Amino acid sequence: TNPFWEQVGISFVQHYYHQFDNDRSLLGALYLDSSCLSWEGEQCRGKVAIVEKLLKLPFRKIAHSITAQDHQPTPDGCILSVVVGQLKADEDQIIGFHQTFILKSIDESWVCTNDIFRLALYNFG
Amino acid sequence: TNPFWEQVGISFVQHYYHQFDNDRSLLGALYLDSSCLSWEGEQCRGKVAIVEKLLKLPFRKIAHSITAQDHQPTPDGCILSVVVGQLKADEDQIIGFHQTFILKSIDESWVCTNDIFRLALYNFG
Repeated sequence: TNPFWEQVGISFVQHYYHQFDNDRSLLGALYLDSSCLSWEGEQCRGKVAIVEKLLKLPFRKIAHSITAQDHQPTPDGCILSVVVGQLKADEDQIIGFHQTFILKSIDESWVCTNDIFRLALYNFG
Repeated sequence: TNPFWEQVGISFVQHYYHQFDNDRSLLGALYLDSSCLSWEGEQCRGKVAIVEKLLKLPFRKIAHSITAQDHQPTPDGCILSVVVGQLKADEDQIIGFHQTFILKSIDESWVCTNDIFRLALYNFG
């Protein structure tokens, strides 16, 4: 069986993208008021600002698919998760992305304290 | 001026890849005995195992170039850094990569407790 951080990480990732693809206005439940998001290099902080940012993204429909994920325990009892995948926004071409999360256990549920998202575009100079 | 976590993150990243490209046997100084590395999905733990893994990678010469980096403070006083770039190993084609670090301050220097590396290959199914 997988170590607990993999089980937690895999569940979080599945839930996060399911929520994102179905109704991203609900993602605030997965962040704290102190959480940081970097989205394509733009930073914002706090669940309210993060949901606002996600809702302003210029697409209506989105579908993520995951090709690889890595999870590690951190020294402070958190979990570091890196997801690599592809997404399709509206009728645009499929594009690669990668997203890094730090997950922290608060009151027996796991929330995201840090989130860094990049499209895979930026690998190619 | 940049917030301190960006200054620390940028310096670490510059030092890390400089060391990697010049003599990766010295990278152990940047890890702890409890540090985790995931390299293309393969995990190892501790500075000795990490350096051993890095030395076994099947290339002699390598050159990294960085195209984007993001840094965030974590709730536990660490720094989360994500680097996107390209690398050229020996005479192979240039290839994209992304690497995530958690940096922790120990005795007034910053070391890496967590490291997740992926080639950008995996974005394309």
